[in-house]
Amino acid sequence: MVKDSISANNPSINSWIEVSSESDFPIQNLPFGIYSTKNKTKRVGVAIGDRILDLSQLLEHGYLNSLSFCEHCFSNEFLNRMMGHGKLEIRDLRNRISELLNVENPELSQNKEALNKVLDLQIESEMHLPVKIGDYTDFYSSEQHAFNVGSMFRDPDNALLPNWKHIPVAYHGRSSSIVASGEPIFRPKGQQKLNDQENPIFGPTKLLDFELEMGFITFDGKSLGEHITTDEADNYIFGMCLFNDWSARDIQKWEYVPLGPFLAKNFASSMSCWIVTLDALEPFRTNGPIQDPKILPYLEYKGDKHIDINLSVSIETPNGEEKTVCNSNYKHMYWNMNQQLAHHSVNGCNINCGDLLASGTISGPEEGSFGSMLEISWRGTKPVSMPDGSQRKFINDGDKVIFRGAASNKNYKVGFGKLISEVFPTK
Amino acid sequence: MVKDSISANNPSINSWIEVSSESDFPIQNLPFGIYSTKNKTKRVGVAIGDRILDLSQLLEHGYLNSLSFCEHCFSNEFLNRMMGHGKLEIRDLRNRISELLNVENPELSQNKEALNKVLDLQIESEMHLPVKIGDYTDFYSSEQHAFNVGSMFRDPDNALLPNWKHIPVAYHGRSSSIVASGEPIFRPKGQQKLNDQENPIFGPTKLLDFELEMGFITFDGKSLGEHITTDEADNYIFGMCLFNDWSARDIQKWEYVPLGPFLAKNFASSMSCWIVTLDALEPFRTNGPIQDPKILPYLEYKGDKHIDINLSVSIETPNGEEKTVCNSNYKHMYWNMNQQLAHHSVNGCNINCGDLLASGTISGPEEGSFGSMLEISWRGTKPVSMPDGSQRKFINDGDKVIFRGAASNKNYKVGFGKLISEVFPTK
Repeated sequence: MVKDSISANNPSINSWIEVSSESDFPIQNLPFGIYSTKNKTKRVGVAIGDRILDLSQLLEHGYLNSLSFCEHCFSNEFLNRMMGHGKLEIRDLRNRISELLNVENPELSQNKEALNKVLDLQIESEMHLPVKIGDYTDFYSSEQHAFNVGSMFRDPDNALLPNWKHIPVAYHGRSSSIVASGEPIFRPKGQQKLNDQENPIFGPTKLLDFELEMGFITFDGKSLGEHITTDEADNYIFGMCLFNDWSARDIQKWEYVPLGPFLAKNFASSMSCWIVTLDALEPFRTNGPIQDPKILPYLEYKGDKHIDINLSVSIETPNGEEKTVCNSNYKHMYWNMNQQLAHHSVNGCNINCGDLLASGTISGPEEGSFGSMLEISWRGTKPVSMPDGSQRKFINDGDKVIFRGAASNKNYKVGFGKLISEVFPTK
Repeated sequence: MVKDSISANNPSINSWIEVSSESDFPIQNLPFGIYSTKNKTKRVGVAIGDRILDLSQLLEHGYLNSLSFCEHCFSNEFLNRMMGHGKLEIRDLRNRISELLNVENPELSQNKEALNKVLDLQIESEMHLPVKIGDYTDFYSSEQHAFNVGSMFRDPDNALLPNWKHIPVAYHGRSSSIVASGEPIFRPKGQQKLNDQENPIFGPTKLLDFELEMGFITFDGKSLGEHITTDEADNYIFGMCLFNDWSARDIQKWEYVPLGPFLAKNFASSMSCWIVTLDALEPFRTNGPIQDPKILPYLEYKGDKHIDINLSVSIETPNGEEKTVCNSNYKHMYWNMNQQLAHHSVNGCNINCGDLLASGTISGPEEGSFGSMLEISWRGTKPVSMPDGSQRKFINDGDKVIFRGAASNKNYKVGFGKLISEVFPTK
């Protein structure tokens, strides 16, 4: 692939739209999402400061005539059709949007009639699930998380299973129950087996948990029988989101041997609404861990393929007080996205436009950086004190779980917005 | 749901289209599929004898005016839009088709102009993947299969895991790589770990296997947080197909702990092209096994919910000779479809139109009825002699694997057509 210039990442550009220094959405971000307003049906938008740029109106007003997108790409309830144009055309689109929002360019900023149509306030807009997800795969790629879980459930001296450092372990999850930030999460019911009883019982989970993850969304992949190399992988990745892989630990424990988690996970997963392009994250690349034992050649990669993204989780209790329970970072992955995509397709499995591949729980090396209540409360043995005086081993009905994520350097911050989900009692 | 009469199942009806007694497709079957011809783009068809009835042409000629289907339901590359009409309207459609094909009804049979348009020969048609599959779930619901696998890999005295008789164990599979009968299967590459070596090796699987399964396709299900009871389940099931869950045993063994099979399965699964409605299978209901230990109330069901469907697997070697290696029956399931659907949704997981739920390998109690080469050759210790003098422990490049299935009674046979897949070398 020709490496077209990512001019939108130029740190010295400012926008004629005022963007506060706290905003996740400076002109160097320009993430894509699906939104609607009182007067507008679902459509593709790009976040800038506290505004949303309406791409269908931008197209209608002739500002995207140099590109090959049609109205169906933007007047659409999902990003998939737009994404179908592939890496280079999306890069051109983002570059063009940056150009239009550049403070030095009067093209759009001086067209009062167009401005009324192409800009909406985020506060007056509703965000929706951005992607029609075909297949969803969940990896298990943070070493500290795998170590923590292995220590708790097996043996601290042999916490990692023999395959873990050879294989980016993953399983297929449920696409239908992936919901957007803001959607309710209903406490799932299921079978649980208590240690002192012979038979399982049935009821709402007592151990509802979040998992702090990030996901990436694919452009079209290759056909059945073909595979994507680690070198090629970047070209197949549209962008990233925050991802909460909700889990019911008691259901999981009883069901998951031998075929993996099922009802413990597929009742819901939540994703953030703005998809930050991989292009926008390029300035935040960093190196990964030394991988020892030596990995197989198809998993080797060149260059810095990890990304430095600060992540946090907080719990807001029903009285509205919020407590941060985790500060982690996406750079703590043992296996990066390029390795994950190469592994996923090395057997000839086809990848489609709109597939979602999630990281697995992202736990850092220190206690304060663990990415699930299972680890934070160490199986319930270390409850967390909340500002309202209550304690949390796991998540209660009425709690809101809030994920935040942003990559920062001395010039600007590229953020993901909040992923926020409230837990409701079993229906 | 009102139980409308399934008049299409009347055993005394004959068609004015001649149907041989060997045919899988008498007038009491009427399965749905997607086909195309030299002159026709993909569309919905119904099999009758060696013909296909073109539903879009039937609609255009006014024969379906009493029903609420539009042209987009039938001039479509998938059955989903038609299926969206739900159980009762599909029943009415099948009843109406039966009426039109009835030898005593001259409506269609005497309209020479229409006949030219609405009937095609199967031999001159190409069949396609019939359903746009949203999520695909694979169960593990045959006791003999679970026992065989547990005996081989664990311990014959404790072959079934503790949860197996309480939970219809299942995992999520890959939707994107489900292909239609006739599509090529490429031998997958992947990591394999030999017992006497410290590190895994990489290469084409040496242990490529089929799994004899059946799948069912859902109408729309319920929303997130709701569940489908065993009593309601029939109303959410459109129909069934033959299903081959291709497996690479060496890749599976190394990767599957702790999160289940991934690359060992997701390189391909094959399904038969005709979806036989659950309505057409109602006359073949039979009782299931006594379930002991007692199951939880949400898994209890009333009436006969198993189905008596004879199944076979044969292998055709490159010289064109075919040998049957398995005769099994769908009635050998421990968990039936109603239980599977109730379990799948009991945690609030939503089910969509076009989801596929497969049975898991269907092994009967005798050796000749085992549904995978792993079991037939007992891990390679009992090779199968082929007519060409070669032996098979697993599947070779150039082999064709052929599944057949049919439910029969003294009146007629309801069959599924062949599911046939040829194995090609690694791309």
